Amino acid sequence: MGFEFDRDSEVVDNGASTYSAQLSGGWLIGGGLNGGYQLAVIANALRAASPDRPDPVVMSAHFMAAAIEGEATIHTRMLREGGRLATLSAELIQNDTHCVSATATYGDAAAMSTDVATMAGPPDIPPVDACLSAELAPPGLRSAAPMLERLDLRLDPSYAGWARDQPSRSGVIQGWLRFADRREPDTRSLLFAVDALPPVTFDLGLPGWAPTIQLTAHVRAIPEPGWLLVRHATRNVAGGMFEEDCDIWDSSRRLVAQSRQLARLPR
Amino acid sequence: MGFEFDRDSEVVDNGASTYSAQLSGGWLIGGGLNGGYQLAVIANALRAASPDRPDPVVMSAHFMAAAIEGEATIHTRMLREGGRLATLSAELIQNDTHCVSATATYGDAAAMSTDVATMAGPPDIPPVDACLSAELAPPGLRSAAPMLERLDLRLDPSYAGWARDQPSRSGVIQGWLRFADRREPDTRSLLFAVDALPPVTFDLGLPGWAPTIQLTAHVRAIPEPGWLLVRHATRNVAGGMFEEDCDIWDSSRRLVAQSRQLARLPR
Repeated sequence: MGFEFDRDSEVVDNGASTYSAQLSGGWLIGGGLNGGYQLAVIANALRAASPDRPDPVVMSAHFMAAAIEGEATIHTRMLREGGRLATLSAELIQNDTHCVSATATYGDAAAMSTDVATMAGPPDIPPVDACLSAELAPPGLRSAAPMLERLDLRLDPSYAGWARDQPSRSGVIQGWLRFADRREPDTRSLLFAVDALPPVTFDLGLPGWAPTIQLTAHVRAIPEPGWLLVRHATRNVAGGMFEEDCDIWDSSRRLVAQSRQLARLPR
Repeated sequence: MGFEFDRDSEVVDNGASTYSAQLSGGWLIGGGLNGGYQLAVIANALRAASPDRPDPVVMSAHFMAAAIEGEATIHTRMLREGGRLATLSAELIQNDTHCVSATATYGDAAAMSTDVATMAGPPDIPPVDACLSAELAPPGLRSAAPMLERLDLRLDPSYAGWARDQPSRSGVIQGWLRFADRREPDTRSLLFAVDALPPVTFDLGLPGWAPTIQLTAHVRAIPEPGWLLVRHATRNVAGGMFEEDCDIWDSSRRLVAQSRQLARLPR
């Protein structure tokens, strides 16, 4: 049986560094499959292509066309390996359309130095039970986002007023995240988690889909089991685009992932 | 004659989407050529490959091996073009070594929407004449960094104590930047500017070269002529690596570029 996330991100090795996947409509959000879900599928192909260095350290991805439910092919290429790191590229192709171009540096997270001198502590946020479940989201939003059914997402009410047409206009969204079926986080699922929350533009009073142009994620540690604390913020909205930064802390309050994306403003 | 930056980043079209460049030792810093300089060379190849969309919007780059003075080849590939954006990949190869793998989304900056709703204002910093010129840097540092001769860099004294073995330990370096020969900034030179200052690890009391693993830069507007205000900060030092964020404001105080890199801590 397994967990939804693992089942839906499986890849089959077709030889010649090429893998196939059956992308699941369960991860739809707005007009296409969630970008983080696509990165998690790509990460399964890259892990297969880099068995000695199985963990993403940094993945950069350019999203060129929306992926939809159905078969996709992931072409991988080892660019350089040596020492503790390997760098690979991956292209996700669906129906002859080049949807995603990703490049990633992989390593062995369990063998990394355990020193921590982080300056970024987790933000103030109410406990899980005092946050707002996505089950309370407006029905129109939920029907456009079947992915929400796969998550247990509890949003900080201070930045969730947009659900009642009262956005805080801070450019922040934060909350507690885990999979609905209690699959525990790992280095691969962090690539999904950095792109799982609603776009910060909701909190700016701009509802609607905000397609990612480019996203780069750093995976900085193996997360402990339990809830992830996920914070998104934007500081630069201009030229029809916005930058969105994401930080993720695990249940031990360690900063385990960071990402930055450039996305288009909703129309 | 032209400016040093332009002369040293020229590429020659060899056909078949391949370009050659003569990398100049004038941009050495520590053990290799500056990463931002390499991005500027790559950007010349990509501009030639994408004449209708000549400006970088976002470039992601994985640095796999140090580049040195001498000939290099840049292989480009158009991944997708249509609408306002084009996405291309580029690989910088030198002496059969794959040094850089980059992917970039290009557009026409002059045709972009001019709306600005940015939240990130420029930081407090003393005026140019009250900042510290890199000419005051210790001779050992200057001889290891011929690139500094090509810049007029004025560092905020609040975060320049490392030059006297008194780092502020804030994880910040900021200053005013222009080219020594007064070449004005443009969208391409911003790709250089996001990686031109000393690493923030200097301010943490960790002198030494900090090789970039991956860097993603967003170019958000055409910069006005004059000084750039460049701020670097880190919030996550762990596992032998650190993240370094850069924001750049132009002389009109507009946020024109942002970048984030993941780099190795100095040994």
